[in-house]
Amino acid sequence: MKPYPDEEFLLTTPAARRLYHEYAEGQPILDYHCHLSPRELAEDRRWGNLTELWLGGDHYKWRAMRAAGIDEDYITGDAEPRDKFLRWAALMPRLVGNPLYHWSHLELKRYFGVAEPLSERNADAVWALCSEKLKAVSARSLVRAAGVKLIYTTDDPLDELRWHRQLKEDFEIAVLPAFRPDKALGIEKKGFAAYVAALGGDILDLDGFLNALIGRIDLFHAMGCRNSDHGLDRIPRSFDGDPELTLRRALSGMPVSPEEAEVFRAFVLYFLAEEYAKRGWVMQLHFGALRDPNPLALQYLGPDTGFDAIRGEGGAGAALGAFLGRLEQDGVLPKTVLYSLDPGDNAPVGAILGSFQSPEARGKLQQGPAWWFNDTKEGILAQLNSLASLSVLGDFIGMTTDSRSFLSYARHEYFRRLLCALLGRWVTEGDVPEDWDGLGELIRDVCWRNAARYFEFQFE
Amino acid sequence: MKPYPDEEFLLTTPAARRLYHEYAEGQPILDYHCHLSPRELAEDRRWGNLTELWLGGDHYKWRAMRAAGIDEDYITGDAEPRDKFLRWAALMPRLVGNPLYHWSHLELKRYFGVAEPLSERNADAVWALCSEKLKAVSARSLVRAAGVKLIYTTDDPLDELRWHRQLKEDFEIAVLPAFRPDKALGIEKKGFAAYVAALGGDILDLDGFLNALIGRIDLFHAMGCRNSDHGLDRIPRSFDGDPELTLRRALSGMPVSPEEAEVFRAFVLYFLAEEYAKRGWVMQLHFGALRDPNPLALQYLGPDTGFDAIRGEGGAGAALGAFLGRLEQDGVLPKTVLYSLDPGDNAPVGAILGSFQSPEARGKLQQGPAWWFNDTKEGILAQLNSLASLSVLGDFIGMTTDSRSFLSYARHEYFRRLLCALLGRWVTEGDVPEDWDGLGELIRDVCWRNAARYFEFQFE
Amino acid sequence: MKPYPDEEFLLTTPAARRLYHEYAEGQPILDYHCHLSPRELAEDRRWGNLTELWLGGDHYKWRAMRAAGIDEDYITGDAEPRDKFLRWAALMPRLVGNPLYHWSHLELKRYFGVAEPLSERNADAVWALCSEKLKAVSARSLVRAAGVKLIYTTDDPLDELRWHRQLKEDFEIAVLPAFRPDKALGIEKKGFAAYVAALGGDILDLDGFLNALIGRIDLFHAMGCRNSDHGLDRIPRSFDGDPELTLRRALSGMPVSPEEAEVFRAFVLYFLAEEYAKRGWVMQLHFGALRDPNPLALQYLGPDTGFDAIRGEGGAGAALGAFLGRLEQDGVLPKTVLYSLDPGDNAPVGAILGSFQSPEARGKLQQGPAWWFNDTKEGILAQLNSLASLSVLGDFIGMTTDSRSFLSYARHEYFRRLLCALLGRWVTEGDVPEDWDGLGELIRDVCWRNAARYFEFQFE
Repeated sequence: MKPYPDEEFLLTTPAARRLYHEYAEGQPILDYHCHLSPRELAEDRRWGNLTELWLGGDHYKWRAMRAAGIDEDYITGDAEPRDKFLRWAALMPRLVGNPLYHWSHLELKRYFGVAEPLSERNADAVWALCSEKLKAVSARSLVRAAGVKLIYTTDDPLDELRWHRQLKEDFEIAVLPAFRPDKALGIEKKGFAAYVAALGGDILDLDGFLNALIGRIDLFHAMGCRNSDHGLDRIPRSFDGDPELTLRRALSGMPVSPEEAEVFRAFVLYFLAEEYAKRGWVMQLHFGALRDPNPLALQYLGPDTGFDAIRGEGGAGAALGAFLGRLEQDGVLPKTVLYSLDPGDNAPVGAILGSFQSPEARGKLQQGPAWWFNDTKEGILAQLNSLASLSVLGDFIGMTTDSRSFLSYARHEYFRRLLCALLGRWVTEGDVPEDWDGLGELIRDVCWRNAARYFEFQFE
Repeated sequence: MKPYPDEEFLLTTPAARRLYHEYAEGQPILDYHCHLSPRELAEDRRWGNLTELWLGGDHYKWRAMRAAGIDEDYITGDAEPRDKFLRWAALMPRLVGNPLYHWSHLELKRYFGVAEPLSERNADAVWALCSEKLKAVSARSLVRAAGVKLIYTTDDPLDELRWHRQLKEDFEIAVLPAFRPDKALGIEKKGFAAYVAALGGDILDLDGFLNALIGRIDLFHAMGCRNSDHGLDRIPRSFDGDPELTLRRALSGMPVSPEEAEVFRAFVLYFLAEEYAKRGWVMQLHFGALRDPNPLALQYLGPDTGFDAIRGEGGAGAALGAFLGRLEQDGVLPKTVLYSLDPGDNAPVGAILGSFQSPEARGKLQQGPAWWFNDTKEGILAQLNSLASLSVLGDFIGMTTDSRSFLSYARHEYFRRLLCALLGRWVTEGDVPEDWDGLGELIRDVCWRNAARYFEFQFE
Repeated sequence: MKPYPDEEFLLTTPAARRLYHEYAEGQPILDYHCHLSPRELAEDRRWGNLTELWLGGDHYKWRAMRAAGIDEDYITGDAEPRDKFLRWAALMPRLVGNPLYHWSHLELKRYFGVAEPLSERNADAVWALCSEKLKAVSARSLVRAAGVKLIYTTDDPLDELRWHRQLKEDFEIAVLPAFRPDKALGIEKKGFAAYVAALGGDILDLDGFLNALIGRIDLFHAMGCRNSDHGLDRIPRSFDGDPELTLRRALSGMPVSPEEAEVFRAFVLYFLAEEYAKRGWVMQLHFGALRDPNPLALQYLGPDTGFDAIRGEGGAGAALGAFLGRLEQDGVLPKTVLYSLDPGDNAPVGAILGSFQSPEARGKLQQGPAWWFNDTKEGILAQLNSLASLSVLGDFIGMTTDSRSFLSYARHEYFRRLLCALLGRWVTEGDVPEDWDGLGELIRDVCWRNAARYFEFQFE
């Protein structure tokens, strides 16, 4: 069998190969949204075995293993690391067509030099080889090897940014915090009052609450942050309510209805957007996830362990139109990146971008890259096609890993191969002329230059 | 003109041809969901002419003929069988791109040896040839010729299963009943009270109603049934109501609101799910159909005559999360197969599977194969791609005919060709390594071995 | 670099090339829905420069330029025409994948003989060459050059049809008005009362209002019109209200709620449908647009300037079923063409067609061609695939420009190339037999013969 994946992986035309190798390969990575741990980078974490690095914390893989009927012992449970790996390896051949199949093999190749399909047949040999190579691997070595120049982690306003501060001192790659105040918007959730108390001892009203958030924004800004992120079940539908009253009720321990919570979120988001706009920050909005539908899994394993799904409720176009329209009318709309978890929202999201563009930036409104369940070959191509049709492909800010794993910088390679495969197919089929220079410029813009411009990031 | 369809039909790469001919062709068929008549099998029905067999009862073809402006006389009306066939034949060339074009030609080839495109030019010759061959054709001969090993019909709880009993005695192919209690859940429909009366003479309350259903479940179970099915407009959104009161009102002839009916269905489905789970049964849920939007057609031709459509209302992800989450929390979630009629639900349905998997089975939660309006080349490929991306393709239980026609076992061939075409394309383009054995295993699993495991069916 | 686009543009297989050149190329165009100005045709408008003709009034291009961060001065503002053109030319290379990239180059080739990719490098030369050729160009010359035989403009009931009358006298190409009474249905909009006053001085009640509309319908009918069009945010969901009362309130200056307006629209549409049906007219329904989400853009630039988007709200299948079902039940359903702006509605719309077909016409119910944001390569192919799967491709009435620009007849060429590319791929891959005659008939039917039949239009 020939090597898998080989150097022409996904590059199905000569044009794609030329575009990838000449213009995309080896370009810098600016990862403007991920969930890496700044502490692990600061401490330059090392891993005791392949399972710890590769399967620990990766809820994508856990999910696939559960779907295959593997016992939880071998997923998040107490089984031996090697046995967990063997279960995973044995599942691989049934996973063709899943992004995990591609990601896993790209990761094995890039970080461990394994270029053959993983299965139970070669699992022992792969384990042995990777265990050996793992000795030379650390968090920083992985990031360096991938050519990363910027990492935006995702951080709570309460975060003291201690690790970011340390990294600024002793790591040559920029690791900046991004402001993600989900807990400050989750007024109907348990723990909200305690969260507000932690935000500032004397918060009694909306003004106090918002001022405390401004304080945190300023702290992040001073650390270099130009980037925020919000995880919303859905875009708030209404401003029709009294956020002051809702806040007071929540702080005094009274229950808050879903409707009141949504209106509260609308007001706080509006307020935050204004602050972001003032400072030239970017506002990322992730919406459409169905969180924790399985109550037993939530109880025993907690959130973010691979049980979430897609709401699929529709209405994103009208909701975004109303919400963003209000910000625009008042002149407080910042640069904004929209991500819906429902692939059916590609068109409504792509179209609404065009309603709020402005000379402030090339692509002031952006559709984020294919997110989470859509971060697949077909999903990435669908997002690129939709975005190209409805907006300006050449101004797209490109890929993020959105990952908790240091190995997942291979996803930037995956994205770049698909981008070049798409453009290469267009050239080959005559959709687009053979303007290599023009396409090369576009590719480098999408790989990282647009993101650098958008997030106002400079590096030597 | 070369033969159409030929033996390489749909197999567009050498890899696809190898995969199909080596691993898929001639594999057994387990048809775990269809609407064949057990009586016609028991009586080994024969057909007087091609129209009776091929156009009679096939609402897919009726629908296409109506769209083409053909008079109802030539569809379900009193025109001569031969004239109906001629109308159908003349329409064929305008139907390219419709699954009927492919199905019809596959059926003509497999059952009658006709390998040329049907049109008004050769309609007379085809009619003559098929009329001759029809003399040797019967219900059982068609099923045997297709290599079927298991047929699950779709049966009302009131069915006495007489024909299934007879088939057990005198037919070598397993023909099992599947439990479809739609009438027991249709509390707002005319005839519900009479239905309940037929279920048991003394049903006065919810307990009595549910006990009567248990009795029927036990009867089906004794006949070998491990399989249920439900046709729902939509997944019930709420348990917030009093099903006992609603039932009493319905039984006393009082009207039931759509909201009350939906809550009643939620409770009865919950109850049935628990009974299925106890017995190791599978629960199939079909949802999203818009039934009988044309009141005149309903009045003159009745239901299921080719006038249904797609609701397309969205919200499936959140609704499934809430409904299945309740079953899971109480430990009563059986093996479940989800089918939505809206292709926009592929992603929400594929994602929700992963929220409820367990070591009870490989793929305890399944997305059913592309259903009805989606049972097309593009629809099948879209379902396979989506399922592979979001779950484990190698654990998919595969195809059903969902058909009323004995000729439609050709749809299993159609599905298998497309499965091999997809895998073959992946191999050819380097997405997947040339692991013929591994892919062969996957193909046979999807063709029938996964279904056998899932429905706990054994055959020699 | 070889010419771009060349004569085989989009025709990626030999079969596609054969089908296009033998059967589609040069066929007549019947443009049954567009927004061309009858006055400009009557006066045979000429243009002072390329920007005026090519960028003036084209909100598609404006939208793309805004997305790219170009200042409004260079879009709709006061910048020099040549400078506007240079900005547009410089943007082109970043627009690959956008339909504007294809349309623009087709237009440059067909009308100006430019067959190279436009960019800032050749912008000056292209400007000079086009300026020279522009001297020979007029509205009528463009329409003649494209082979157009019928143009249906889109006209308000109040339109006096003066220009249509003149065109009937002195232009050899049929230019007919289509009846678009959006203002008569926009009861909640400012200006409704004034509009009704203009419709007839003495309208006091619903009867008077409807009679005035009938008068206008008769006027249009006398001019040759067999065609109406409606732009609806969404298909009305309810008939449950008092349209008489709502009208009286609106005429007396009282506010009308969105719910009341929707019920009013349901009743008036019902009434109009009945009138259309009586006269053999076609009813086009366009729905799903999100109009004017940007309040600042609306204030400063007005409607239809490139800021609209997609509602994406779902529910189209059920809503269409209920609305059309009511018309069908009462025997007043005319020939109807459905266009949704949400590509997720392709399946629900394609399916609902089959619920209301009849022998009155081949394809009495039609899905319109891919509309607006869907009028892209992928969108056109998706609509063709969906339509072919769910209905009868051979009975499709085909393409419209839906455009304000005289250059956009190139979009018919674009559509025809894609239709032939699709059919050619099917032939090449063996999906469809090599029945050139049959496919040629289908292509010509879809190009224009079906539309001629459907709109009862004859030409020598």
